[in-house]
Amino acid sequence: MEQLIKDLLVFRNERNWQKFHNPKDLAIAISVEAAELLELFQWRPNEQPVDSVLQNNLENEIADVLLYLLLLADAAKIDILFAAQQKLERNKLRFPISTSYGIAKPDDSSEMI
Amino acid sequence: MEQLIKDLLVFRNERNWQKFHNPKDLAIAISVEAAELLELFQWRPNEQPVDSVLQNNLENEIADVLLYLLLLADAAKIDILFAAQQKLERNKLRFPISTSYGIAKPDDSSEMI
Amino acid sequence: MEQLIKDLLVFRNERNWQKFHNPKDLAIAISVEAAELLELFQWRPNEQPVDSVLQNNLENEIADVLLYLLLLADAAKIDILFAAQQKLERNKLRFPISTSYGIAKPDDSSEMI
Amino acid sequence: MEQLIKDLLVFRNERNWQKFHNPKDLAIAISVEAAELLELFQWRPNEQPVDSVLQNNLENEIADVLLYLLLLADAAKIDILFAAQQKLERNKLRFPISTSYGIAKPDDSSEMI
Repeated sequence: MEQLIKDLLVFRNERNWQKFHNPKDLAIAISVEAAELLELFQWRPNEQPVDSVLQNNLENEIADVLLYLLLLADAAKIDILFAAQQKLERNKLRFPISTSYGIAKPDDSSEMI
Repeated sequence: MEQLIKDLLVFRNERNWQKFHNPKDLAIAISVEAAELLELFQWRPNEQPVDSVLQNNLENEIADVLLYLLLLADAAKIDILFAAQQKLERNKLRFPISTSYGIAKPDDSSEMI
Repeated sequence: MEQLIKDLLVFRNERNWQKFHNPKDLAIAISVEAAELLELFQWRPNEQPVDSVLQNNLENEIADVLLYLLLLADAAKIDILFAAQQKLERNKLRFPISTSYGIAKPDDSSEMI
Repeated sequence: MEQLIKDLLVFRNERNWQKFHNPKDLAIAISVEAAELLELFQWRPNEQPVDSVLQNNLENEIADVLLYLLLLADAAKIDILFAAQQKLERNKLRFPISTSYGIAKPDDSSEMI
């Protein structure tokens, strides 16, 4: 991921796009792309499998969300992998296997990570 | 990122949460977390700098979006880094520096990655 | 709805909140509330019926989305009922019953209104 | 609004679309349309005025959000105007003018309705 981040920042800088990439507008972009990703699942049953057309479209939208996420992490001086690892560690304690096994929303929040 | 993905899948599997983590519900989760991220910027001017309180909250929400994104990529058998690199390569051609330098939305789509 | 809009604008003005209610921040608010609404359905099967707890929560979130929608319509000088009626008229032509009956996404867009 | 709701339900029923319009998918649709609305404001300064092009596009997206909101209210047996009026009444008490005048997020939630 280090190389991806490097390439992304070069891409942004050589187009002089940093001035548009303020944190608030990047947060908006993440939401807009997340909705384009969600739109791929509209009107479909939960259990419908991912076929190759959907998989292609998903690759595109997942990429968009990730790229904006990386730009926001850069703008806010956040180490995204470290933040994610920390969150996972916290949630191992928050959701002990004994009370979470096979259960959705074990602490009534909708969080399942 | 490989290690993060490994730890995340172990975390999910040892809690027997795969059955909840179908692609559609993961897509929903990504949107919900993206909105929690966006909420941090509500009613704030674009140029307001990121202070340490906001940075802490951002770390949490960015982590949430990434973790669900990784779970969706796993469920849809997508190599997320490869997908992002491909998207960036495509956009280097789509947004030549000569026509994109310093310009927002150079091809009228709202995409700026 | 006229009375609701009147009361809402009085509520806003007597708190001197118009300055915060610029169109962009209202658009953000609508998305944030829409995600809180969506969160009520996370991890639930499509066919799970709406019980009274969910109905209560839904009333709250639907109200939030509508109130911000009305504030945005006011800020952008839009007659919301007229706009909705026009959209419905256009879609009666766009989705003739003969080609749309019982069919999801009849024109490949995800629109079903 | 009564007439709009009547026309909308006739439109839906004569196309036999009720089976697609379960509450969860309607909640998704509201989020997707809310993001299309938000996308109109991407990369724009907060204070940029609404010109006629943006106003046209906004009419379309505001209409989409409202129509899906009305379908969801119908599916969940919710009186949307009553719910919004109740919410406004509650918030008159929650945000007294004396403590809210000219202040954003007076109770630290991001709610400003």
